[in-house]
Amino acid sequence: MSGVMQARNLEGKSKEILLKALALKSIEDLPKIQEDVSNKTIVILKVTPLAQKSLEELKSSVEQLYEFATSVGGDIARLGDERVVITPPGVRIWRGLQ
Amino acid sequence: MSGVMQARNLEGKSKEILLKALALKSIEDLPKIQEDVSNKTIVILKVTPLAQKSLEELKSSVEQLYEFATSVGGDIARLGDERVVITPPGVRIWRGLQ
Repeated sequence: MSGVMQARNLEGKSKEILLKALALKSIEDLPKIQEDVSNKTIVILKVTPLAQKSLEELKSSVEQLYEFATSVGGDIARLGDERVVITPPGVRIWRGLQ
Repeated sequence: MSGVMQARNLEGKSKEILLKALALKSIEDLPKIQEDVSNKTIVILKVTPLAQKSLEELKSSVEQLYEFATSVGGDIARLGDERVVITPPGVRIWRGLQ
């Protein structure tokens, strides 16, 4: 593959945003989630599996995700009772009236 | 406002993607949702309000949204039992194994 083609592929990849629905089962899932968000992926995280296991671990996980999202210039918000949405920079969560 | 500033503002707006959580209460909500997606907004749509009113209207609405998302080069997928996600072009929904 030529250098020009590589550059085009890299450019193409960097433009596309991915949206993933994932389940949070353990605080050990956080590094992978944070890596996804760093790679321009929006993560819709179902937190009920961890909520059923440990509310303490859930609380700590959400705090860590909040700090992470804020520090990278992304965004984070609850979605109903079961989910949290974490976005990379460039994707802002709308908090308007409905 | 000068033409240069306007151009900068337009450029800034076009780069940012918005993510909105909305509720689908009627098939009459579709034009606004489609307008949002056309304006680079990801819509996470809670469909239970319409499901409780009319399953026929829900079915028709989801079919219309599917056709719309496909026609504009966006993406659409269910999120659990209560929600549907519709994305504009440039945002792809990941359908990997978990």
